[in-house]
Amino acid sequence: MPLPDALRAELSDIPMLDDQRVVRMKSRDFFWFSPVLKQSLGDKRADLVIEPRDKADVMRIAAACARHRVPITIRGGGTGNYGQAVPLAGGVVLDMAKLDQMIWQKPGAGRFAAGARMLEIDRTLAPLAHELRFYPSTRQAATIGGFVAGGAAGAGSCTWGQISDPGAVLGVEVVTVEENPRAIELRGRDVLKVMHAYGVNGIITEVEVPLAPLHPWCERIAVFPSLSAAAKFAQNFTECDGIAKKLVTVHDPQVVPYLKRLSAYADSGEAMVIVMASEPQAEAFELLVADHGGRVTFRRSAADAQEAAYGGGTMPPIYEFTWNHTTLHAIRIEPTITYLQLRFPPVTNLELVDWVAKRFENEVLLHLEFQRRFGKVTCSSLPLVRYTTTERLNEIMAELDAKGVAVSNPHTYVLDNAGWKRVDAPQAEFKRLADPFGLMNPGKLKEWRTEAMLATA
Amino acid sequence: MPLPDALRAELSDIPMLDDQRVVRMKSRDFFWFSPVLKQSLGDKRADLVIEPRDKADVMRIAAACARHRVPITIRGGGTGNYGQAVPLAGGVVLDMAKLDQMIWQKPGAGRFAAGARMLEIDRTLAPLAHELRFYPSTRQAATIGGFVAGGAAGAGSCTWGQISDPGAVLGVEVVTVEENPRAIELRGRDVLKVMHAYGVNGIITEVEVPLAPLHPWCERIAVFPSLSAAAKFAQNFTECDGIAKKLVTVHDPQVVPYLKRLSAYADSGEAMVIVMASEPQAEAFELLVADHGGRVTFRRSAADAQEAAYGGGTMPPIYEFTWNHTTLHAIRIEPTITYLQLRFPPVTNLELVDWVAKRFENEVLLHLEFQRRFGKVTCSSLPLVRYTTTERLNEIMAELDAKGVAVSNPHTYVLDNAGWKRVDAPQAEFKRLADPFGLMNPGKLKEWRTEAMLATA
Repeated sequence: MPLPDALRAELSDIPMLDDQRVVRMKSRDFFWFSPVLKQSLGDKRADLVIEPRDKADVMRIAAACARHRVPITIRGGGTGNYGQAVPLAGGVVLDMAKLDQMIWQKPGAGRFAAGARMLEIDRTLAPLAHELRFYPSTRQAATIGGFVAGGAAGAGSCTWGQISDPGAVLGVEVVTVEENPRAIELRGRDVLKVMHAYGVNGIITEVEVPLAPLHPWCERIAVFPSLSAAAKFAQNFTECDGIAKKLVTVHDPQVVPYLKRLSAYADSGEAMVIVMASEPQAEAFELLVADHGGRVTFRRSAADAQEAAYGGGTMPPIYEFTWNHTTLHAIRIEPTITYLQLRFPPVTNLELVDWVAKRFENEVLLHLEFQRRFGKVTCSSLPLVRYTTTERLNEIMAELDAKGVAVSNPHTYVLDNAGWKRVDAPQAEFKRLADPFGLMNPGKLKEWRTEAMLATA
Repeated sequence: MPLPDALRAELSDIPMLDDQRVVRMKSRDFFWFSPVLKQSLGDKRADLVIEPRDKADVMRIAAACARHRVPITIRGGGTGNYGQAVPLAGGVVLDMAKLDQMIWQKPGAGRFAAGARMLEIDRTLAPLAHELRFYPSTRQAATIGGFVAGGAAGAGSCTWGQISDPGAVLGVEVVTVEENPRAIELRGRDVLKVMHAYGVNGIITEVEVPLAPLHPWCERIAVFPSLSAAAKFAQNFTECDGIAKKLVTVHDPQVVPYLKRLSAYADSGEAMVIVMASEPQAEAFELLVADHGGRVTFRRSAADAQEAAYGGGTMPPIYEFTWNHTTLHAIRIEPTITYLQLRFPPVTNLELVDWVAKRFENEVLLHLEFQRRFGKVTCSSLPLVRYTTTERLNEIMAELDAKGVAVSNPHTYVLDNAGWKRVDAPQAEFKRLADPFGLMNPGKLKEWRTEAMLATA
């Protein structure tokens, strides 16, 4: 269905991108990490990209889409991995990049326009001695609105837990896709109505979060004789309440060679631990490394690490070798590689890590992200998988799940199967209110019916 | 043994206090919380109080005491509870109060002279957006050196753990009591050589600690129908990694009436939870209170709470109704009351709390301090005890210990029985080096023999 000319005409003063190459690019995210999604999403694209300059623009675009019944897909940094930003039914992509202001900041909290990039937020906050508590490894491109809509954890989770934890997001403003759009403020627990909903139930325009007062985060790499030894160290280190830390990642010896730039910092067969810790406490980290039979092979000061994050120097910031950036590095070297999303339960996590490593040797290559979950330290993982077939992938997931390792399937674009309903909030009810015509990326929700659809069903 | 005149003469330019009332006062701490210690320490006193103005003074005093073989007892704020500051064999009390400078501060760390009071340190740090991670409820009077020598935890422990945890103290400078005193820097794990050693193995002159970037801590009181319900809330709240917090205290309904100023904030029979949380996250706290069937009865903003800590207003800072200040309030009302020191193991702590409350009903009145210990949330307690006899007190401690509740006996001034050796470090070896003549408060260590004593034994 071609886009109605009237819609273009009504919004003609708002910046639009029509060039087909650009539209294609802005219709994609990192879904191609998955061979399954690559097949199903490879040819999906919008008809037009619109770039609102402010909230008034957002409301005009929402109104026009509602009136003309044009599908609308919200785009943050486009760093998602499940096709969150891929329009399944064409229409408009709403690129939030120009809504990037800091609205206010005070001790312990700040409010930002949804399109603000997380690295830029931190650059603004640094002179105020504050920072975001969390960021994904895609900090440079990811937006705060996109992170709330499609993220879950990241650097910072070893201290602060998950973004769905109580108090982790203070408020969001959401614009409805109606003929007369409303801006709705969701606060406290109501934030969960739109969290991890992939932007299909309202347009997030502002995000208010608690901020962390800034620590000087230095970077360290330590190596250990085995994955098991590295994981044990990482568990104990993360449990050191007295050492302020931002990141604790463990790479299996088989993962290290894929991290080209880092492979020089480990001998063959060694497991690697990547850490960002408060600089004055680096000594305590190093003592613990020695206790666990490891050795420190890389050290970068907090000042140099910050410089690297801002684009200075040749060695990227170390968090770009963690979380799902790992998959990116691996795919560049071995294009058939894909990944999974695992969550290990606390207490038995190290045991299960050993089990997975052994059971799926050479097929599932673990890297672990240590984090706090509800007051306990455990790890999650986005392991690399040497992909053969979809059937085998499903087999692996089923076996992991049966063993008690929680799997979130990243090989589906259908929200019902993955993110949706994992959050304990009436997301569907909120969608009825925020998107009464079912225009927000239709197709993402398999089970979704609008009121109108229900009436005629 | 009277003090040698030569010692006074040699040090005559250094401020001294000779007035017998003052000397008596400066020879005491809060040991009188214990009816047992009251008996054994009530008449102990020094012959002279000396107030060094700087490190050079400290070294001259140490040299003079060594040369003349005069006992020396180090005094911080005098807020200890086991007679740490009580000279058992007379001699000199070294009052560290005048060594109170901030030596330096940088992001995430600071170094202070040992006599600096913790409240004053925080007052200096606040404009720099930093604060001490921990303070005892005696923050106003306690010194940083005294806290390292005699403290263990306090407000801040719900986030940062214990001061003996890895990385919690970065360095200390210690002056030896020798004819030619040396200033020794202990760093990293070596800090443990003097930690919790009650100042008997060297004179701590400087302390370097990691600092916490400052949060705006607001104060809240919530009440619950029972101790059990309040403890369950406190456990869950402390496990909320996403809510920045400084203090989580639970008072049994029987304790509340002793906290005169706070008793208006609870109905009879209600248990009380006292919290300091980052102000922007107070809403998340209140939601959780409601979930647990509690209600919030007191709210004070971070600005007003800070003002109260600095002595403004009529309502004291809320942390002065927690930790061992609780005992102080209770003794004022019921002078026969004393206390114990308990540590509940993680996982089973709530179960054991219920057991203690029931087993020693009306005799051991629990208040709980929630804290992180090695990555897990649990609680410790300084319960009020309705004292009858020393035998009964020992009986209670033995029964608690047998049940798996760790008891530190606060009713002994002998370091061997309490603090000493609880720290995993060669403290005795370090004492031989730092105090070769055994002059540092002789009597505190029952099993201690100097080289000379050993040679003639």
